[in-house]
Amino acid sequence: MNINVAFLPSDIHEKNLSETVCIVLDIFRATSVIVTAMAHGCQHIIPVLTIEEARRLAGEIGPVLLAGERQSIKINGFDCGNSPYEFSKDRVQAQKIIMTTTNGTTAINSTKGAYRTLIGSFLNANAVYKEAQELGKDILIVCAGTDRLFSLEDALCAGLLVHRFIGAEHVSMTDSARGALLMYTTAKEAIGEIVSHSRNGKRLYDLDLKTDVDYCLQTDILDIVPKYSEGKISL
Amino acid sequence: MNINVAFLPSDIHEKNLSETVCIVLDIFRATSVIVTAMAHGCQHIIPVLTIEEARRLAGEIGPVLLAGERQSIKINGFDCGNSPYEFSKDRVQAQKIIMTTTNGTTAINSTKGAYRTLIGSFLNANAVYKEAQELGKDILIVCAGTDRLFSLEDALCAGLLVHRFIGAEHVSMTDSARGALLMYTTAKEAIGEIVSHSRNGKRLYDLDLKTDVDYCLQTDILDIVPKYSEGKISL
Repeated sequence: MNINVAFLPSDIHEKNLSETVCIVLDIFRATSVIVTAMAHGCQHIIPVLTIEEARRLAGEIGPVLLAGERQSIKINGFDCGNSPYEFSKDRVQAQKIIMTTTNGTTAINSTKGAYRTLIGSFLNANAVYKEAQELGKDILIVCAGTDRLFSLEDALCAGLLVHRFIGAEHVSMTDSARGALLMYTTAKEAIGEIVSHSRNGKRLYDLDLKTDVDYCLQTDILDIVPKYSEGKISL
Repeated sequence: MNINVAFLPSDIHEKNLSETVCIVLDIFRATSVIVTAMAHGCQHIIPVLTIEEARRLAGEIGPVLLAGERQSIKINGFDCGNSPYEFSKDRVQAQKIIMTTTNGTTAINSTKGAYRTLIGSFLNANAVYKEAQELGKDILIVCAGTDRLFSLEDALCAGLLVHRFIGAEHVSMTDSARGALLMYTTAKEAIGEIVSHSRNGKRLYDLDLKTDVDYCLQTDILDIVPKYSEGKISL
């Protein structure tokens, strides 16, 4: 089993992922929200790139909840923004959600053709690790990054996952997996403090969304693994 | 002063680098060789992408030394490969060198328009840090990577440089600079051991070039800063 990390979707150069299990991470906040919504009983989530596409699709397949943000702010006329606290059981149980997220959707799309695409986060790290481990394939952890730039919180979650994989059995690692592991090794006792200085961490703090940051950095609190397949995320 | 790290040349999205000092790193082995050759009195080095371009240019401007490798092996008919031990004082003093290196040249070219482009390595880390610091501009450390993939040894040298910069004064850091620093913090007491497991480290070990690895990982042994300007590297 080989463990690889793409710090950005553009780092993926593999032409064929059919024997690879991909784990997509967009910690602030797309994949943390997806995992939360699915844990709260949402039926499925359709991730799309643009606001227009979200509205058009809602018109076609409604009734659905429309979710999404731009610059961390809820889109006008949408049901939810991108805070995990907006995806409570009351709100999402048995619902379909169309979610527009640029970084998250780009990362998910970059795993096209994968043996399986799992949606990861700190919240469900152990569940994702266990499911991927059992599949016995090579692993590619895809960090969404933000606007084509490296995001520290995604890389640290990747490092946490690498740490789990190498603990279980003999695995090989690429340089980037090793790099993520080295980052995580330094940071693990102070993830919250370190992430508070990151670009996205600071942005969320500035928007008075420290509770979102704290929520998304909780490890192993949700025991589910959403999967992406044919345009939809479901359990 | 802001410190940024591009783990790959393709991570650079800045349109204007005119107020940025770039530091290019290709530890195994292009920038380590360049720094060594310049320390040994070489007049200047012209980095080019292809073997054809190197031969054509040599025909135009000769006499020169032709240097370069493909898959870590010296190019047929060239004077030198890409081992720092081939660039001794006897060999290179007062000589011009045309060097073909794909990753190193791509990284150097990616800094086009920079306020200054400095050639860095572990060997001259302190000299590069001091010179960049004195220029008082924003810093972009560009890791060459290998074949468009993240290289651990480049990222660790970037982390060493970030460590120096943040020690000197109050600086801001991007997420990638912070990531490089976290990697370096874990790895610093065992760089040789960690790099021996990296992709390029293993490749050089397999080619019986452990002496090259050991040489390139020596820190602060050369007190010079080669600069790239208008197609040439000189002091």
